[in-house]
Order: sequence, then structure tokens, then C-alpha cells
Amino acid sequence: MPAWDLLITNARLATMEKGAAPYGAIEPGALAVAQGRIVWLGPQAELPRGEAAEFYDAEGRWVTPGLVDCHTHLVYGGDRAAEFELRLQGASYEEIARAGGGILSTVTATRAATEDELLSGALPRARALLREGVTTIEIKSGYGLELNQELKQLRVARRLQEQLPLSVRTTFLGAHAVPPEYKGRSEDYLQSVLAMLPEVAASGLADALDAFCETIAFTPEQTERLFTAARDAGLPVKLHADQLSNSQGAALAARFGALSADHLEHTNEEGAAAMAAAGTVAVLLPGAFYFLRETKLPPMEAFRRHGVGMALASDCNPGSSPVTSLLLMLSMGCTYFRMTPEEALAGVTREGARALGLGESHGTLSVGKVADLAVWDIVRPAELAYRVGFNPLHRCYKEGRAVELT
Amino acid sequence: MPAWDLLITNARLATMEKGAAPYGAIEPGALAVAQGRIVWLGPQAELPRGEAAEFYDAEGRWVTPGLVDCHTHLVYGGDRAAEFELRLQGASYEEIARAGGGILSTVTATRAATEDELLSGALPRARALLREGVTTIEIKSGYGLELNQELKQLRVARRLQEQLPLSVRTTFLGAHAVPPEYKGRSEDYLQSVLAMLPEVAASGLADALDAFCETIAFTPEQTERLFTAARDAGLPVKLHADQLSNSQGAALAARFGALSADHLEHTNEEGAAAMAAAGTVAVLLPGAFYFLRETKLPPMEAFRRHGVGMALASDCNPGSSPVTSLLLMLSMGCTYFRMTPEEALAGVTREGARALGLGESHGTLSVGKVADLAVWDIVRPAELAYRVGFNPLHRCYKEGRAVELT
Ligand SMILES: [Zn+2]
Ligand SMILES: [Zn+2]
Repeated sequence: MPAWDLLITNARLATMEKGAAPYGAIEPGALAVAQGRIVWLGPQAELPRGEAAEFYDAEGRWVTPGLVDCHTHLVYGGDRAAEFELRLQGASYEEIARAGGGILSTVTATRAATEDELLSGALPRARALLREGVTTIEIKSGYGLELNQELKQLRVARRLQEQLPLSVRTTFLGAHAVPPEYKGRSEDYLQSVLAMLPEVAASGLADALDAFCETIAFTPEQTERLFTAARDAGLPVKLHADQLSNSQGAALAARFGALSADHLEHTNEEGAAAMAAAGTVAVLLPGAFYFLRETKLPPMEAFRRHGVGMALASDCNPGSSPVTSLLLMLSMGCTYFRMTPEEALAGVTREGARALGLGESHGTLSVGKVADLAVWDIVRPAELAYRVGFNPLHRCYKEGRAVELT
Repeated sequence: MPAWDLLITNARLATMEKGAAPYGAIEPGALAVAQGRIVWLGPQAELPRGEAAEFYDAEGRWVTPGLVDCHTHLVYGGDRAAEFELRLQGASYEEIARAGGGILSTVTATRAATEDELLSGALPRARALLREGVTTIEIKSGYGLELNQELKQLRVARRLQEQLPLSVRTTFLGAHAVPPEYKGRSEDYLQSVLAMLPEVAASGLADALDAFCETIAFTPEQTERLFTAARDAGLPVKLHADQLSNSQGAALAARFGALSADHLEHTNEEGAAAMAAAGTVAVLLPGAFYFLRETKLPPMEAFRRHGVGMALASDCNPGSSPVTSLLLMLSMGCTYFRMTPEEALAGVTREGARALGLGESHGTLSVGKVADLAVWDIVRPAELAYRVGFNPLHRCYKEGRAVELT
């Protein structure tokens, strides 16, 4: 007779496995965990006999995979509330720049902060995500823009994982912006990022590399050189692509077998086709779309037609998406991008995990995967996307252990 | 020496009193409470000597008035998540109507529910608001659409006030929609609402009357007859006005000295001027604007020019604004309507209270007013509007007593 660490019965399982039933649903279902992994799941009636150290009767509640927030800039110094207020009071961009606004203000504040200060600033944001059933987050560097400062951000990201029941995947985003000391010399700064890369890779602090490919940041050609170097260093790549204009960033990302291309408002059919062929996930960021009052929609129909996986993420950052609710991103994904609630939920589970290279171990409920589970007080999964500003999380498990939600 | 029930020191007080300082701020400030009322507040240095039963050192945190959500339909049966999903799957309005969608599905579910069922459905929504520092909410009837059903909704609203540390103001919204049994006979139904009115007034269950004046609901002429009857019955009025078209609802509301006119996307300059003259508050509802993907903005500049008070509310309802976060409405008020963070905060405090006829007793921090207080972990008040999906509430007092926030 099997000995389980945890047995959940009387659940409605939204496995999020692709298949016949919407949401990959199994109702009523049961799920057994041993050593942090799902070792059995299926219809309640087929549950084999076994002994469980912990037993939970879900009383008909829905159980989904723990949520994955696959694109955040969660570790940073300062905030930009003052700039937000100035803008709404009618200040011009010049006035805001003079008052120390813009991304460089975040760079300055991040550089000035100690690791402990960055950590204590990031903790409440990470906890807000955790309280909504998020069990895995990605965190990018990109506000240090020099080797030791970037490593500092990445170390803080790793420390969050020690402090909270969260898996953290880190991404080196040295090519986020050109720092003030390189003003007007983006190529020189790119050389410095290329020089950082071997040390970042050797540090083990980065699980991937990302870049901001845009008219206001780095060119496709620069991005390509960076991606080539990342490949040599053994780092998978991701890309901020086609947010403000179409610079063929999606296709470029696909050419390098990127885990994901992110934003994508200006991506075209060709870009979508290339992503599909490469298995590159489209990470959609409705929080930034909202906050920046964008109007151009990502090519949703092309993504669907070509079978591009679509993830949703918070893009948590102080400048363009000060968002710490992944559930709200489900709502905005549906309202703005016309995703179905099922697509939205897949976007923060199955596809979010794939965007981090964790598709084999996370993101769906299936045997062998890590037992990251969210239990919801809802009647149907669509409620997760339908409600606005409501958190129906009932309980949460990280690797089979119940998470404190206070 | 005065004996206080509660003394708060070391606070930054956002009194929200109109005056010289933004947010009516007093920093550092102190505030003393006796018998549920604010009995002293001012600069810390001027605090007179006194004895306090309870003492709280706010350690520099901001203290605002408890928030006021002045427009909700929080008590209802069922939800509309299935309809939301159908629509995003591409179902036509006809298909949705056949599947039992639309406002009438909420009427059916509300009528079928017992008082206890309605109460247990409403409690989690009210608690979600409470956790964000809301201490006063308005709740409308309008899903019963017959006397006993309307009274049932209003009784549930009153019971919420007994169960939670919230002040509830109730509004009779019999003229919300034409119920199925009156299909095509809106005038007959209006007569029935007129017949309900004396009994509703006599029951003491309604603090005000509201109506939905719109091409798809009741005409201005019908609204006028209803308002005349409300005046005779001694009930103040409010109006759902000019949401989908300009039917001069704002001016009509002003003519009756309405507490508020709500929505107002299509209100014109004349309407704004009339509201200003009458002291009628403009209640803006960005949640419905978001959920319905509206594009027409309320006449913000006209409101400002004429000095119309602007409130912000959740409009919590299952069909067009399934919103239970008032803080998110601050964000959306700024992002969509270009309110300043200070206007947004005034909208859920001072102006929200005025929209409920509670301007004398609630909505600002000043001597003599009820000690409903929210204490926030923020550096500046603008953060309340800047952050998206984050709740920085640290503690909350209802009539001077600390509220349990779990
Ligand atoms: Zn980003
Ligand atoms: Zn309403």
C-alpha cells in the first residue's frame, strides 16, 4: 500500500493539461503527494488504497497548479509614485526628468540600496503575489547596469527564495537600458554587458538572459550579438520584444530558440509563425498595457492560429507596471486581449512554466511534477478571471507543504 | 486633563480637508478619540496633555479617513462568471440570453435566494472592501424588483452592518430594470415602483432612492415622477445618469437636489454646471468603464471648472463591475479619467461621504467627526493610487475601535 505525505480528496482538479475537458478538469478528483511530487491523481472513484500522513478534504473546491509569474522586475530600489503624481498634475516629461524621474531614478535608487534594503522592499511585493497562490516567480536584474550591481540584484532574488515558499528563477537583464555614465554610447555599454556575461554565468546567479530590444534601447543587431554570447555561456534567452514598435524582435527571439518573447504588441504574423516553430512562448503583459494606456493589441489570432503558447505575467516594476496581483492580470488578459478565462489561467500555469523552461516540472497537475497547488473558493475556474480585485485563495501548497498565507 | 479612549501620535495625517496643504496634510500629527469621535487633532507639537486608554505610535505612517465606497450593488444572488466566459468564447448576445445571462439572471438568482444565502454571498465581498480600509459602504437594492424582494435585499444590507465593522447606507433602486413579468410594460412597472415607495420609506430600510435613467431603462420623465414621489416620502435621491447616452440625467438629478449623479460619461457642460449649483456629487465608476471597455470619458475638466465634487466607487455588481477593490478604483480613476492621486483619494473619502449625505460626520479627519481611520504603510499618499493590486493597509479603526483585518 503506498505511503503518501499528502492526500487531497473531493477536489475539482483543473489540471491544465491539454486535452478533451476544458481546464483539463477532473471532477471529483483526488491527488496524492510524496516527497514534494504528485505521485497520483485522477478521478476520486479510481483512487487506490493508500496511507497518507496528511489528509485534506477539499469539499468540492477547485485545485489548480500553483501560479507562475514568469516576468517580473520585482527587486528594485525606491518607487515612482511621486513621478506618477507629477505626471497626473500635468508636469511635462522634462519637468519629471528634472525632478529625477524615469528609469534612471530607479537605477540610482537600486544602486544606492544595500542588499538588505532591496530585500525588505521586495518582500511585501513577493508576499502579495504569494497570497494569490503564486508559487514560482521570475525576477530580472536590470536596474544595476554594472557587474556588481547586477549581481546584487540577482543575489537578492535568490534570497527571496530562501525567505518565502516560492521558487525564484532569475534572469540577467544587463541590457535593460543604457546607464547614465554611458549616455549616448549604447555600443560601449553593450560591450560592457558582454564583458559581464561570463562572470554572471559563472556566478550561478542567473538562470537566463534577457534584453530590451527596442528603438529606445538596444538594436536587433546588438541583441543578436548578446544572444550569441549567452548561447556560448550556456544561458537560455528571453526577450522584451516589439512593445513599442515592430523591430522583428519576436522572430529574432525565435531564431535563438528563446524560452519566451515578451510584450509583443507590435509583433506580426511572421513573428508569430517563427515563435510557434521554435516553441517560444508569448508572454503577454496587460499590466503595462493598462498603466501605459496602450491601444495596440498583440496579434492574438495569429498566436492562436499558429499554436503559440501564451503566458500572462505581472511585469511588476516601478515604472510601467507597479502591479502585484497576478489574478488581476487574468482579468486584464481577458478584458484587454480577449483571452478566454481558460487561456488566461493556462497563461499563469502551464505556459508561464514553459516560459521559464520549467514545463517538465511545473505548471500542470500531473504525475511526477512538483506538488505546487492552489486551492480556491470558487464554483468555476472562470471566476479567477471574472472577478476584479478579489482573492478567493483558500489554501496553497509549495512542494506538498501547506503555505502560511498571512 | 482630557481623558481619551485612543491617542495616535507620530502620524502623518491626510485629513482630506480642503485647504492649503495637499491632502490636508499635517506632519507629524496627533489625533485623539473619545466616544467614537475625533476630539482633537493637529501638529504633534501642539498636542495638549491628556490621558489615553489606548495609545498608538504610528511611527510616521499615514493616517487617512476610513474609505467610503458610495456606490455598490453588493447584495445579489448568483454570479455572472459563466456568462463572462461564454462571451469571451465568442457566444452572441442571443446565445447568452438563451443560456440565462444578463441582468435578469441576477434578478432570478436574487429572488430565489434566502436572506441568509444573500448574506453569506455578500459577506466575502464586504470583507474584501473592509480589508482595504473601507469603513462605510452604500448598498443598493434593485435585483428584487418587487416589494418583498426589494425589502429582502435591503434587510440583508442592514444585517451586513451588524456582522461587520462597517457603516452601511442603503438605497432603494426599484427602478433599476423592468422585471420579466412586466416585459414591454415599463410604465406599468414604474407604477408598481411608485406603489412600493411609501412602504419602503415606512420600513426605514432605505436611506435614499436611486433610479437608472437611460434609453434602455427609465425615461427622464419617469425618473422625474419617481423623484417627486421620493421627495414626498422624505427620501433623498441619487441617479444612474448619462452612462450610455446623454439624457440630461445629471441636470435632472441636480434639479431634485440629488446627493449624487453617477457614471456621467456622457454628461455635458450644462449638466456639470447644474450639479455644481445643486451641490450634487459626481460619482465616477471606473470599474464599469474598464469591464465594459468604454471609451467615452466623463467631462472631467467641466467638473473641475465648475467645482463639482468627484467621488469614486466600486459599483460592485455581477454584470458590469465585479469589483471588490476600492484601491484599484483609485488607480483606474487616475489611469482612465486622469484624476490626480489627491482627487482620487478625496473621491473615496470626503466626496464619497458627501455622496451619501454623510459629509458632516464622515470623510475627513476633523474634530467632531466619527473616528473611522485607516493607517497605511506608505511613504506618500500617492502610492494608494499608484500601486496596482497591492494593499498597504496597516490597521484600521471603526468609530475609534481597532478592526480585525483577517
Ligand atoms: Zn519587463
Ligand atoms: Zn450602479
